[in-house]
Amino acid sequence: MTPIRVGMIGGGEGAFIGAVHRTAMRITGAYDLVCGAFSSDPARSRASGAAIGIDPARAYPDFERMIAAEAALPPAERMQAVVIVTPNHLHLKASAAALDAGFDVICDKPAARTLGEARELRDHVRASGRLFVLTHTYLGYPLVRQARELVASGAIGPVRRVYVEYTQGWLARPEEAGGQKQAAWRTDPDLSGPSGCYGDIGSHAHNLAEYVAGQRVTELLTELAVQVPGRRLDDDGASLLRFESGARGVLTASQICPGEENALRLRVYGETGGLDWRQEEPNTLWLKPIDGPAQRWRAGGNVAYLAPDVAAEFRTPAGHPEGYLEAFATLYTRAAEAIRSGSSAPMSPHLPGIDAGVRGMAFIDAALRSSAAGGKWTALDAN
Amino acid sequence: MTPIRVGMIGGGEGAFIGAVHRTAMRITGAYDLVCGAFSSDPARSRASGAAIGIDPARAYPDFERMIAAEAALPPAERMQAVVIVTPNHLHLKASAAALDAGFDVICDKPAARTLGEARELRDHVRASGRLFVLTHTYLGYPLVRQARELVASGAIGPVRRVYVEYTQGWLARPEEAGGQKQAAWRTDPDLSGPSGCYGDIGSHAHNLAEYVAGQRVTELLTELAVQVPGRRLDDDGASLLRFESGARGVLTASQICPGEENALRLRVYGETGGLDWRQEEPNTLWLKPIDGPAQRWRAGGNVAYLAPDVAAEFRTPAGHPEGYLEAFATLYTRAAEAIRSGSSAPMSPHLPGIDAGVRGMAFIDAALRSSAAGGKWTALDAN
Amino acid sequence: MTPIRVGMIGGGEGAFIGAVHRTAMRITGAYDLVCGAFSSDPARSRASGAAIGIDPARAYPDFERMIAAEAALPPAERMQAVVIVTPNHLHLKASAAALDAGFDVICDKPAARTLGEARELRDHVRASGRLFVLTHTYLGYPLVRQARELVASGAIGPVRRVYVEYTQGWLARPEEAGGQKQAAWRTDPDLSGPSGCYGDIGSHAHNLAEYVAGQRVTELLTELAVQVPGRRLDDDGASLLRFESGARGVLTASQICPGEENALRLRVYGETGGLDWRQEEPNTLWLKPIDGPAQRWRAGGNVAYLAPDVAAEFRTPAGHPEGYLEAFATLYTRAAEAIRSGSSAPMSPHLPGIDAGVRGMAFIDAALRSSAAGGKWTALDAN
Amino acid sequence: MTPIRVGMIGGGEGAFIGAVHRTAMRITGAYDLVCGAFSSDPARSRASGAAIGIDPARAYPDFERMIAAEAALPPAERMQAVVIVTPNHLHLKASAAALDAGFDVICDKPAARTLGEARELRDHVRASGRLFVLTHTYLGYPLVRQARELVASGAIGPVRRVYVEYTQGWLARPEEAGGQKQAAWRTDPDLSGPSGCYGDIGSHAHNLAEYVAGQRVTELLTELAVQVPGRRLDDDGASLLRFESGARGVLTASQICPGEENALRLRVYGETGGLDWRQEEPNTLWLKPIDGPAQRWRAGGNVAYLAPDVAAEFRTPAGHPEGYLEAFATLYTRAAEAIRSGSSAPMSPHLPGIDAGVRGMAFIDAALRSSAAGGKWTALDAN
Repeated sequence: MTPIRVGMIGGGEGAFIGAVHRTAMRITGAYDLVCGAFSSDPARSRASGAAIGIDPARAYPDFERMIAAEAALPPAERMQAVVIVTPNHLHLKASAAALDAGFDVICDKPAARTLGEARELRDHVRASGRLFVLTHTYLGYPLVRQARELVASGAIGPVRRVYVEYTQGWLARPEEAGGQKQAAWRTDPDLSGPSGCYGDIGSHAHNLAEYVAGQRVTELLTELAVQVPGRRLDDDGASLLRFESGARGVLTASQICPGEENALRLRVYGETGGLDWRQEEPNTLWLKPIDGPAQRWRAGGNVAYLAPDVAAEFRTPAGHPEGYLEAFATLYTRAAEAIRSGSSAPMSPHLPGIDAGVRGMAFIDAALRSSAAGGKWTALDAN
Repeated sequence: MTPIRVGMIGGGEGAFIGAVHRTAMRITGAYDLVCGAFSSDPARSRASGAAIGIDPARAYPDFERMIAAEAALPPAERMQAVVIVTPNHLHLKASAAALDAGFDVICDKPAARTLGEARELRDHVRASGRLFVLTHTYLGYPLVRQARELVASGAIGPVRRVYVEYTQGWLARPEEAGGQKQAAWRTDPDLSGPSGCYGDIGSHAHNLAEYVAGQRVTELLTELAVQVPGRRLDDDGASLLRFESGARGVLTASQICPGEENALRLRVYGETGGLDWRQEEPNTLWLKPIDGPAQRWRAGGNVAYLAPDVAAEFRTPAGHPEGYLEAFATLYTRAAEAIRSGSSAPMSPHLPGIDAGVRGMAFIDAALRSSAAGGKWTALDAN
Repeated sequence: MTPIRVGMIGGGEGAFIGAVHRTAMRITGAYDLVCGAFSSDPARSRASGAAIGIDPARAYPDFERMIAAEAALPPAERMQAVVIVTPNHLHLKASAAALDAGFDVICDKPAARTLGEARELRDHVRASGRLFVLTHTYLGYPLVRQARELVASGAIGPVRRVYVEYTQGWLARPEEAGGQKQAAWRTDPDLSGPSGCYGDIGSHAHNLAEYVAGQRVTELLTELAVQVPGRRLDDDGASLLRFESGARGVLTASQICPGEENALRLRVYGETGGLDWRQEEPNTLWLKPIDGPAQRWRAGGNVAYLAPDVAAEFRTPAGHPEGYLEAFATLYTRAAEAIRSGSSAPMSPHLPGIDAGVRGMAFIDAALRSSAAGGKWTALDAN
Repeated sequence: MTPIRVGMIGGGEGAFIGAVHRTAMRITGAYDLVCGAFSSDPARSRASGAAIGIDPARAYPDFERMIAAEAALPPAERMQAVVIVTPNHLHLKASAAALDAGFDVICDKPAARTLGEARELRDHVRASGRLFVLTHTYLGYPLVRQARELVASGAIGPVRRVYVEYTQGWLARPEEAGGQKQAAWRTDPDLSGPSGCYGDIGSHAHNLAEYVAGQRVTELLTELAVQVPGRRLDDDGASLLRFESGARGVLTASQICPGEENALRLRVYGETGGLDWRQEEPNTLWLKPIDGPAQRWRAGGNVAYLAPDVAAEFRTPAGHPEGYLEAFATLYTRAAEAIRSGSSAPMSPHLPGIDAGVRGMAFIDAALRSSAAGGKWTALDAN
């Protein structure tokens, strides 16, 4: 199938999430990044585009010009969708401009800086009739979808209690004071919006809880805190939640817990069972029936007990954690360096070659001979 | 940088490892798959090529013709390297043909069916002066490289004891009798070579142990077994190992352990510490100093205590397990379907859109208001 | 040293916590249970006493008579302390009576049914000058004490954020309706007091958090819930906490989460590190420094990095989980049955005897011979 | 029931396993330690006896005199059984003397120093008609028994593959050179017998594997090693095993793996499932069916899916790890110190008293008030 042509807004050099979006698109094989306005600094935008192989003519100085120029191209050539990976303050403007010009939009979350902006954006979506996709990453894990299906199928009975937590430690110190770019915009109300921690990760936790529980939060009670002196936005908070069905919930989000990485965890308990999933070990989902031992559900395209449409989402069989593909990719990166060097030797010690191949066969050969001899010590001969 | 043009041998529809190699190449962004001989059945090769967007003229009926045809193309157009993902019995033939024609080769492991074939292949590598890369996947995990560096740096002292195990369960039943394609060729000596389990996974365990220990196995004592009646190749085995330095090792490999997925684990103990790494949880490496508590080393590009060249291999920061990229990719796959449908509604319930965006902002908005009021119950307003 | 003579109030047949207290006393070797009023039913009290070897004359029909009778015995004979393991509604009465009569008191938690009762009890403690001990079990885990010492020593810096949770599932169904004795009194306000879940386990969580954090909760905000229809007391709840130093906390307690056993967990984060401890894996304490890998602190009398007074609390070296003693005790129970049977044969298959002894030596003997022969297959000879 | 009167041989001050046996006996409540020959040094034996409350007249200078003196006492007074906890070289002599004098014997493993001695001991057992119990500790864990029952019931099908490993690190350095008492006798062939590591822990691994697999090892192939220079006995080894049914096994035992505590682990795989149990987490047993998710079986007297005779072995319900009893006991030890001090104040900060009791009630009281007010911040009032 022909890839979809996309343009990117944001994601220039030094950005984190832009590169994530680009790699994700490449994994699918369904997209072709043809243009971008990668930075509000035109020179940086051009350099960023060049670094990733974008035609210089399509590395635009700003998103307004990108949208105008692309709209003017012949349909078979112009971008079909826009990916927005800027800080939050541009989400509304860039999305609206793209939608209004007739482009589909894929936007990093949150949708906008404020509720008012989000509503305004909704008006643009409705008026344009275009697609607007919000990348709440964690809904992309197949076992999250399995969890939702288990709740929906009644596997744990009516939901009573939800615990969702998102715990990080990377803002335990005033990183923004030291110029760390990610920290700087996330703690700046002008760029990020009126909430820091809740806007950045609390919203993920909320989205995940509603998605799996299959119902909405109707009311909450929250205490936000600024734990690092001098910071302008919340970096820590906790909420009590009430759900549509009467279920109760607790949501916590914090960015000031040293030693924690990206510890998003969801537990949902119903009348007859419980579910437990952790983002840092995404290949495992616990189902805890009220009678009988807890069950460890595992990820994998070949796992027979998963829902067929969930199993179909995996790219590898069980036991090949999703990082398996990236391990492979790392070998390919090393190989690309070697190929480009134009020389067969000396290869990196981290890249196996023919000597490793011969050694591997020597190992198998010695194993076969040792075993055939009834279990005898046998030397490897890799000459 | 311009991507490297590659051709693939094997990896047609229904194959497992071919798709893995292609995804890995896409993740890197450094390759362009331009041609292939995807199957020994010409029609299947064409269909497989079409399914992944290969120019029909370059979906060749067999690898001999692919090599000849590509060699005849102008340098700027022809493939630069060949990726070989066939069953083992073709590794030598295909590699040799590609090398002899002046192409670099990236080959799935093992290098060949037998030690003799591997040596023959080595002759071709040497004579051709071309690059030959063997994809021992597990060397691609950054923490495996960190483990090797820790051993090399003396962090655990001289190595005394190595345990490496590779435990699977997928061949606990005679899957090959039922026509499972992966099982069929792996248990057929003509296609796989004289060893089944040891050829398939024992060789990975051996490679990993030598890589991390930084030294070679000199002698082994092995007992192989055929545990499933009627099978023609070993599906289970265990070895005692002796290493160059005098260190002792135990290597086990089995494919008949029900409930196990892909449980590759390596432990290395030296005079002053130990290391423990598991493929199924590849983002964690244990360092166990002889004095003091065990340390849980974690993966991530932002992890300050990792060796800089190891940290540089990560695509995400700590806590974003490598599957994080694939979770993102899954969203992008869903979005591609939606974009191609040409309609903005109705979207999949698994794909967040503007309503999720407004809800997310309503959550943050309610949290801010509740907190500002000193912790009061506050309704979400997502209208 | 001469054991301390104690009398027990409550803990008759069918009770849970009474047997726990008795076993705990026996483990110490420091107590001698000499009398009891084990039940409010005199016959049951006698029978319960007889079952555990109490002199019938000292198995009293009620605690008032026990206290009076014991007080009348010569000092060298009468009980020295009283252990109270009744439902909550008797804690005040029994404790006050014992204290007023000059006996030290060890009482299961909570101290009383209500805050008013607890204050009244405090008056009795002060007036009597006797010892009153409240068995908040979890303070008895040595690694909990280590956690407290780490906080006190500044290992994690000033505390900012506390998460404490106590999650159970045993009341997810209306067990009290079926006559389960533990459930019946805990859900009955007359016996338990005005709170169910919070009185039973929330109070443990609160106590643990204050103990480790080394500071007090000053304010809380709580929502309690009755999740099982018809129940009269809360079985679920969640609180936001404020601590003396300004630290924030979240405390959750629930007894309606199916599949959960006794999941008490405490996490404390300071400016420069975090701590994590789980009751269900009490031999491990995580210390997470803001820089460097997480450290897994382990229990054991021989663990050099523990505080000396903490290490001194262990009864076994590292790796012998505390259940090790009970595994040993189980063998001794089986052996006692065998000894009492008066016959040497046939022994339980679960009790190793001389044949196991000979087999064990045959194993070692064969191993030595096989190894001495350079690694040869060698038969075990256990004749 | 009247406790069984026992005498102990070995287990004087500074010994490890003697104290373990005594605590285990106390936990059961079924034994009364009435006499002992605690050390080969008469003064030390007396002092050791005094420290644990043994009548000085029955703290004998050696076991021969103990056996003679006790045999001369009236039946209702003399010991009924002997517990032997000396180094291995005395197991035969002491056991034989006790058996020949008509006493039942409970002996720490291994049964003797050599296979020849074990056979000699077997003759004494047979001739005496007395009971001989060998304390292979790990058979005392209830979930080990459950594992055996699962194998016997066919839950995993006929056994094919067994992995048993026992990994320690405490002898990674020449502790015996520094006079560590446990290390000294275990590395001395005169006291320990001809094997070090295999005699000490390999024999446990062998025993456990046969017990759970329900069948015997018929042949083995072993390589033992001395890894610490100057040591006289093996401190590391590995074996391949063959079982009666044709199942294969691997057994490893090592005492030179730094960072490992007491890592005994058993995995058994049959045709249709697998089992996995670890001594360091003894409350969990994994059952891995060939189809369906892995199941985490948990310990606890109230766990409905356990075999009834296994559930009956637990002293606590699920989630109260067996160390729970010891946590309780630690509180009782602290309380005993406080009671003996004769003063109610000041108590240890680690021992909760009435103030903790009032605080606990103040917490519950504030929670109830906050909740009743619909979730309002409420101060704790513990005055």
